[in-house]
Amino acid sequence: MSMTANKSAAKATATEESLHRIFTIPEAPDSTLGLIEQEMSQNLAGFLGDHIVAKDHLLTSIEKDFACSAIPEDPAYVSDHMHHLLEKLVAQSVHTSSPSFIGHMTSALPYFILPLSKLMVGLNQNLVKIETSKAFTPLERQVLGMMHRLVYQEDDTFYQRWMHSAKHSLGAFCSGGTVANITALWVARNNLLKADGNFKGVAQQGLFAALNHYQYNGLVILVSSRGHYSLKKSADILGIGRDSVIAIPTDEHNRIDCAKLREKCLELQQQNIAILSIVGVAGTTETGSVDLLEKMAHIAQEFSCHFHVDAAWGGATLLSNKHRSILKGVELADSVTIDAHKQMYVPMGAGLVVFKNPSLASSIEHHAEYILRKGSKDLGSHTLEGSRPGMAMLVYASLHIISRPGYELLINQSIDKANYYAQIIDQHEDFELITKPELCLLTYRYNPKQVQDYLERCNEKEQLAVNQLLDQLTKFIQKRQRENGKSFVSRTRIEVGKYQNRKTLVFRVVLANPLTTKAILNDILQEQAELAQESISFLPKLFEKSSQLI
Amino acid sequence: MSMTANKSAAKATATEESLHRIFTIPEAPDSTLGLIEQEMSQNLAGFLGDHIVAKDHLLTSIEKDFACSAIPEDPAYVSDHMHHLLEKLVAQSVHTSSPSFIGHMTSALPYFILPLSKLMVGLNQNLVKIETSKAFTPLERQVLGMMHRLVYQEDDTFYQRWMHSAKHSLGAFCSGGTVANITALWVARNNLLKADGNFKGVAQQGLFAALNHYQYNGLVILVSSRGHYSLKKSADILGIGRDSVIAIPTDEHNRIDCAKLREKCLELQQQNIAILSIVGVAGTTETGSVDLLEKMAHIAQEFSCHFHVDAAWGGATLLSNKHRSILKGVELADSVTIDAHKQMYVPMGAGLVVFKNPSLASSIEHHAEYILRKGSKDLGSHTLEGSRPGMAMLVYASLHIISRPGYELLINQSIDKANYYAQIIDQHEDFELITKPELCLLTYRYNPKQVQDYLERCNEKEQLAVNQLLDQLTKFIQKRQRENGKSFVSRTRIEVGKYQNRKTLVFRVVLANPLTTKAILNDILQEQAELAQESISFLPKLFEKSSQLI
Repeated sequence: MSMTANKSAAKATATEESLHRIFTIPEAPDSTLGLIEQEMSQNLAGFLGDHIVAKDHLLTSIEKDFACSAIPEDPAYVSDHMHHLLEKLVAQSVHTSSPSFIGHMTSALPYFILPLSKLMVGLNQNLVKIETSKAFTPLERQVLGMMHRLVYQEDDTFYQRWMHSAKHSLGAFCSGGTVANITALWVARNNLLKADGNFKGVAQQGLFAALNHYQYNGLVILVSSRGHYSLKKSADILGIGRDSVIAIPTDEHNRIDCAKLREKCLELQQQNIAILSIVGVAGTTETGSVDLLEKMAHIAQEFSCHFHVDAAWGGATLLSNKHRSILKGVELADSVTIDAHKQMYVPMGAGLVVFKNPSLASSIEHHAEYILRKGSKDLGSHTLEGSRPGMAMLVYASLHIISRPGYELLINQSIDKANYYAQIIDQHEDFELITKPELCLLTYRYNPKQVQDYLERCNEKEQLAVNQLLDQLTKFIQKRQRENGKSFVSRTRIEVGKYQNRKTLVFRVVLANPLTTKAILNDILQEQAELAQESISFLPKLFEKSSQLI
Repeated sequence: MSMTANKSAAKATATEESLHRIFTIPEAPDSTLGLIEQEMSQNLAGFLGDHIVAKDHLLTSIEKDFACSAIPEDPAYVSDHMHHLLEKLVAQSVHTSSPSFIGHMTSALPYFILPLSKLMVGLNQNLVKIETSKAFTPLERQVLGMMHRLVYQEDDTFYQRWMHSAKHSLGAFCSGGTVANITALWVARNNLLKADGNFKGVAQQGLFAALNHYQYNGLVILVSSRGHYSLKKSADILGIGRDSVIAIPTDEHNRIDCAKLREKCLELQQQNIAILSIVGVAGTTETGSVDLLEKMAHIAQEFSCHFHVDAAWGGATLLSNKHRSILKGVELADSVTIDAHKQMYVPMGAGLVVFKNPSLASSIEHHAEYILRKGSKDLGSHTLEGSRPGMAMLVYASLHIISRPGYELLINQSIDKANYYAQIIDQHEDFELITKPELCLLTYRYNPKQVQDYLERCNEKEQLAVNQLLDQLTKFIQKRQRENGKSFVSRTRIEVGKYQNRKTLVFRVVLANPLTTKAILNDILQEQAELAQESISFLPKLFEKSSQLI
C-alpha cells in the first residue's frame, strides 16, 4: 500500500514494503500530517478555532458521514485521510477548550501536555505489569502517593514505608471517576463481606453466599440526592442493585442532610441491613456543592461503615490552601475519588482513587501466572482495568510544572470567576440565580423581573404553570445559544426549594477554564437576554400571565 | 511561574501571568520540548533507541528517583522537567516497540499514530455524551459497526438500521479487554436475571433477590483452564465470586475439551445451577490457542446460555481472509471482546466488545438528568466507564489507512514468523518446542538433547526432578536475557501433557511486531543457547543427572 504523501496515479494497494514503511518511515515534514502537527504545536487554540466550525449541525446529518459499516478494502493515503478527518470529524467536534464554552467540565490544556502525550503514546507502556512499564510503575505509585498525601497529609515515614510496598497500595489509577467509584465500592464490599470462619469471602464465593453467611437483610449505599449516576451503575455492577442506593435529601445548600442520614442509619441498623458505604460528594456534578464531610465521617464511624468521598470534581480544591477547608473531613474518608482530567487540567481519561489504609485494597487483589505473580509490584493486581496507558506521567509532569501554588492560583481564579458571574446574574433583574457557587459551578435561569415578582405572589397552581413555561424558555435559550456556536452553557433539572422542590430546568455553568474572562461572561449573559427576546412562543405567554394578576 | 524556556536566574514562581502563558503560548520551536517532538516525528525508533537505556536496572534503584510524596511548592521549568523525564523515566522505560522484544503483546506503531494521538488529545473530546463529543459519537458508532460486521457479517440493511439507533448499541468501546469482558458478562448476568413478574431484575434489586426469585442454586461461568484472569476478576466484581468460574480442562491443543464442557453443563443443569456464560477463548494469553468456537456455540445453544468469546488477542485474525476460519463459529457468539491495542496496532488503551443482538446491551442501560437523557444517543448510557477519550478515532484511521488487506498482510506475516520460529526451535537439538503456534504465539524452553532423551526414558520421580531443574534454568536464561537488554522473551508456567500435566516454566513469545525479522529470531535463540552455558548452577547438574543413567 502506498500510504505516504508521494502518491502515484495508480490506486493504492497494500504491499509488504508499504506496510514496512508505515511502521518505520514518517512522511516528509511538509506533508499534511507535518503541517497539522506544526500548526497544533505553534498555536493549538488557533488550530482548533480554524478547524472546528462554529455552526451546530444536526447529529443526523453528521451521521451520514459515518454510515459505512464495511472495513475498507483499499488503503487510504495518509494525507487524504487527514484531510477527510479535518473536514468530517474535527470540523464537527466540540471546542471543549473554548473559553466561552462554559457548560461542561473540560477546559483548555497547558501547552506542554500535547508533546508529552505524544511521548506517552510513542513509549506505549502498559501499566498492568512492570515487564511492560518499568519506571512508569514507580512513577504511578509516586503520583498516587502525592495525591494520597494531598488528601490525608501523612508524614514522610508513612510514605517511605508504603508508597512502593509490593503488598500495599495507596490507591488505584484508572480511566476516570466512574471506574474510581466502582473500585472504591468494590473494595468496601469485599471488606465488609470478607472471609470469616468457613466462609471464604464475597470475592471468592459471591454475594448470595455472603448475605447468607452474614445474615444481613440487605446491603445499601447512602448518598445525597445529588450523588453521581455512577453510584447506581456501581451498585448494579457489584450485584447490590440500583434500588440499594438510597438517596438522602439535601439541605438548602444542596448538601446531604446529616440529621436525615443518621436517622436512616439507625433505621437500617434496626432492620439489620448493612451499610456498604456512606458516600460524601465533594463537588456535585450539577451544582458543585460539597457535603459536610466531617459530620458524615463521624456518622460513618458511629455505624462502623466505609466512608467514601466522590471528589472527582472537587478533589483538586485541596491544592488551594485558601479553599481546602471546604473539604474539611475528607481526610477521615476510607477512600476518595479524584479526576485529574477535570480540575487538574490533564486530558481524558485520568482518574484515581486513594485509600486511607494501605492494606484496604488487598480485598480486591488478583494474581495470575504469567503476570501479577504474588509479591510482584505489578499495578494490575489492584486495579479494575487490565492493560492501561501511562497517563500518570501527565499528572506527574503537571504537578511538577504547575506546582501546588500554581494549581492554587487556578482553583482560586475559578472560584472568583464563579462569584463574579453569580454577582452579574444577581445584578441583572431579568436573571434568577438558582444555586450560588461553592466551588466554580452555579445554576441560574432567565426570568424577567415582572415574572419573578408574580411568582412570589401567585398561588402554587399558578406558580407551577409559570415554572413550566420558564422551563421551556430555558430550553429554548440554551439550544439556540448552542446552535449559534459562539458560546455554550449546559442545562440540567434540579429541585428548587423555593418552588416546593419542583425539578426545575436551569442553566449550569462550570468556570474552570483559565482562559474565560469577565468580558466573555458578560457577553454570554447578554446573548442569553437577547435570545430570550426571540422566543415568540414562551416569553409573551409569560408576560401575559404575570400581567393578568398585577 | 516562569515555565517557558526563557529562564531568569531567579527561582521560578507561579504568577497569574505565567499561568495564563502555559495555557496559551507554546515554547519557542528550538526548545527542549520542540526538539524532542521533532526527533520523535522524524524517527521514533531512533528516538526510543537513543533514550531508553539498554541496561536493566533494579526496580528498587529506580524507585529512589520516584520517592518524594510531597507535591512541589516550586514550579519546574518545562525544559528542565523534560530533561528530568528523559533521564529518569524514558531512560528506564521498556522499549515495547523494539523488534527484538518479543515477550509481550505490544508492538511498533504506524508512524501516523503519533500525530493523530496528538490531535485526539488536543481536541480532548469526552465520549460519554454528545455534548462533549459531537462527531466523535457517530464515528465511534461506525467503528463499532465495522467491528461488528467483521465478526457477524450482517448485511447493509442491518447496519443502516442499528448502527446509529439511539436505543441500540452494536457494542461498547472501552479502555481494554478486561473492561470489555466485564461489560459482556455484566450484560449476560442482567439478561439472565432480568425483570420477571414482581421481580424488577438484578440491575435494580441485586443478586440476592435475583437468585431467590429464580430459585437457582448458583451461577457459574465456564471457560477453559487457559481463560484470562480478567474472568475471575469479572466474577468477583459482578458478585458471583471467583469460585464460580469453572475451569474446564483443555485438550492436547490447549483448546477447551468440548466433551467435558458438555458434561459439566449437564451436571449443572441437574444441580439447578444457572450458567451465566460459556466463554470461548480466541487467542489464549499464554499459548495463543483458539477454542473450537462453533462446537462451543452449539453447546451454549443446547443449554440456552450466553456465549461470550474473549478474542482480545485473536479477534484481529478475522481481518485475514486466509486465517479467519481459525475463529469459525465466532459469529454465533452473543458477545465478542477485541482489543485494538493488540493486533490492530493502536496504542494503549483501546478495547471493545460487540453484541450480536443490538438490543442486548439495554440490560445495562443507565440514565441521568444532566446527561444520558432517555432517547439521547449519548454513548455513556451503555458503557461501564463514564468520561472517555476519543480513542475510536485511532481505530477508525487505522482501518482506513491500513485497510483490511493491509491488516491481512500483517496478520499473515505474524503467523508465518511464528511458524518459522517454531521450525528453528525444532531444528535446534537443544531446544524443546512446548506449544506450536496457532496464531503468532508459541512456548518453548532450552532443554539439551541429552536431557530430552533422558526425560523420555526415566521414571516419573526422576522426570520431576529434572523438570524442576529445567524450570530454574529457564528462569535463569529469561532473567539474564532481559537484563542484557538486547532482547526480551517472557516466561510463564503452563501444564504440559507429556509431563503428566505438570505446570512447567517456559519461554513465551508473541511475534506480532512487523519489524521483527528472521535474523532477529535467529539471534535471540542463539543468545539463549549461549546464556544457558553461563548457568553454572543448573546446567551442570542437568548433565550430571542425565549422564548417570545413560
